[in-house]
Amino acid sequence: MHERADQAAQPRTVGELGEDAALARILPRLRPADAALLGPGDDAAVVAAADGRFVVTTDLMVHGPDFRLAWSTPFELGWKAAATNLTDVAAMGARPTALVVAIAAPSSLDASVLEGIADGLRECLAALAPGAGVVGGDLTASSVLTIAVTAFGDLEGRPPVTRSGARPGDVVAHAGARGDAARGLALLFDEATDASGEPDSAAVDVLRDRHPDLIVAQLAPSPPVGAGVAAAAGGATSMLDVSDGLARDARRVAQASGVGIDFSAAALGPDVRLALAGGEDHGLLATFPPGTALPEPFEPIGLVTDAPGRLFVDGVAIDSAGWDPYSGWDGRAG
Amino acid sequence: MHERADQAAQPRTVGELGEDAALARILPRLRPADAALLGPGDDAAVVAAADGRFVVTTDLMVHGPDFRLAWSTPFELGWKAAATNLTDVAAMGARPTALVVAIAAPSSLDASVLEGIADGLRECLAALAPGAGVVGGDLTASSVLTIAVTAFGDLEGRPPVTRSGARPGDVVAHAGARGDAARGLALLFDEATDASGEPDSAAVDVLRDRHPDLIVAQLAPSPPVGAGVAAAAGGATSMLDVSDGLARDARRVAQASGVGIDFSAAALGPDVRLALAGGEDHGLLATFPPGTALPEPFEPIGLVTDAPGRLFVDGVAIDSAGWDPYSGWDGRAG
Repeated sequence: MHERADQAAQPRTVGELGEDAALARILPRLRPADAALLGPGDDAAVVAAADGRFVVTTDLMVHGPDFRLAWSTPFELGWKAAATNLTDVAAMGARPTALVVAIAAPSSLDASVLEGIADGLRECLAALAPGAGVVGGDLTASSVLTIAVTAFGDLEGRPPVTRSGARPGDVVAHAGARGDAARGLALLFDEATDASGEPDSAAVDVLRDRHPDLIVAQLAPSPPVGAGVAAAAGGATSMLDVSDGLARDARRVAQASGVGIDFSAAALGPDVRLALAGGEDHGLLATFPPGTALPEPFEPIGLVTDAPGRLFVDGVAIDSAGWDPYSGWDGRAG
Repeated sequence: MHERADQAAQPRTVGELGEDAALARILPRLRPADAALLGPGDDAAVVAAADGRFVVTTDLMVHGPDFRLAWSTPFELGWKAAATNLTDVAAMGARPTALVVAIAAPSSLDASVLEGIADGLRECLAALAPGAGVVGGDLTASSVLTIAVTAFGDLEGRPPVTRSGARPGDVVAHAGARGDAARGLALLFDEATDASGEPDSAAVDVLRDRHPDLIVAQLAPSPPVGAGVAAAAGGATSMLDVSDGLARDARRVAQASGVGIDFSAAALGPDVRLALAGGEDHGLLATFPPGTALPEPFEPIGLVTDAPGRLFVDGVAIDSAGWDPYSGWDGRAG
């Protein structure tokens, strides 16, 4: 009884705690980055960049278009915020070293949500990018929970692998899931919303039991981050993170490199349409010179052709399609 | 008449344009960074870090707690988003080199607002950190306009100047405005809101005519970014960016360094209370060994004492007070 009374007296929301006290609950949950020469607590952090350059990418995750609190746990939000940025670093052929994380949170948000996000960030880094850590951040107020992650990487002396180096004759290869995250999202929209279309948290628990792999693929993906360095070291001529769907992202390589990409239907798996259109798997799409021994876990899925900016499946031209945050979001949160 | 018909047919909102077309209107307005080895357009950018380290800081600006669209022009939003991050880099004694900028914008936002933000970012960089530039970013949907900036700097071989190096006997010095931004904000709240407390854009125009310096100090400040490198080169023992008010930020130095800070009332100017409490001036507070010739435009404003974590004015103990995003925001936007 005493314990319950004590808990009730403790501030629980971010607004009750204020910025400094909320940060004091988050920071101890994070592990230092090996590359941090000066970590959180000052105006800025100082991070090692041994080869005299650093790779940097930034992404926002917004309640509504990018996640639903009724579907994702706070741990999964932190995990996904880290994972999606780590793959952008990996897609340059770099080893992730550090993140900074800025969060805008409603005053009414329970502080345990921030703790869960911190736990998810920490465990995702430990799993996908050992040695990388959070070196700084910001916490401010907003009516919409928003997580802004900026991630850094070390090219370790190698040139960056861009989107523009694919050459006709190269092998098109892919590492990671194809369509699992989209199947998970379709399940959530089809079976974890109520009659009015609002996310239903009870239904998610049922889905997690029935389709654990697909739901986790959507809510807390584990993309092949280490494959980025392997691809660069193995001679990749181009590479990118597949966030908006294989077709839409492959067209970006095709346009940047001035080449065509011809997918092999047989290599894409049983559901070619899903493999090409499904977003958010965050696999790595790379091209390699013909005859290259593909590094694990890359698989050959097509060939680079000389038809600038165009996509094909077994030689037949296709359109690209994929996620756009404006056409893809109906304005709901939940 | 033809021209008008053409204009009406062109997409104008961010939602009508979509992510790629909106980015295509922003990116050409930015200038490349001297340090950019690979700029926007790939999964990540590559930035030079000549001395094998980089300084990094991140900050969110959210519609409501951090700005009002009825008060600030888009240009001013971009300018302030850059300026506040540049001073955090400067406060480490580093030269700013690059920014990444992530924006979450409502679908209904006119694309010209994003163009104005880009113009403000560009011109602030040109004015306060020549050679620095935007190297990457993200654009996504949200019901609340949110600007996340992460800024980078080059220590040029010097050790970073932290908050923890102040020693008893050091001179306390300050560069920049003291209280102007807070006076501007008070004017806006007092004279540019309507009877129900909502921001009134017409009244701002009147205020801009009557108090141009104070309104600009709040909406588009020009902090002494270059003074950061000068302080570091001139022997500063500690330094920080004064964002939450001189008293609250000085206490951070006092706590991190285990010292006291005794301000001179005469040096703080005619309104000591305003100088100590007013936030958002983004001046630089630094300490220097006794006898140091202070670099321009630093002015002596007090002395470091041996009373750990405590603040004084002419030897009399004071409390700190300043901005907290949770206690300081009433939930309104406008």
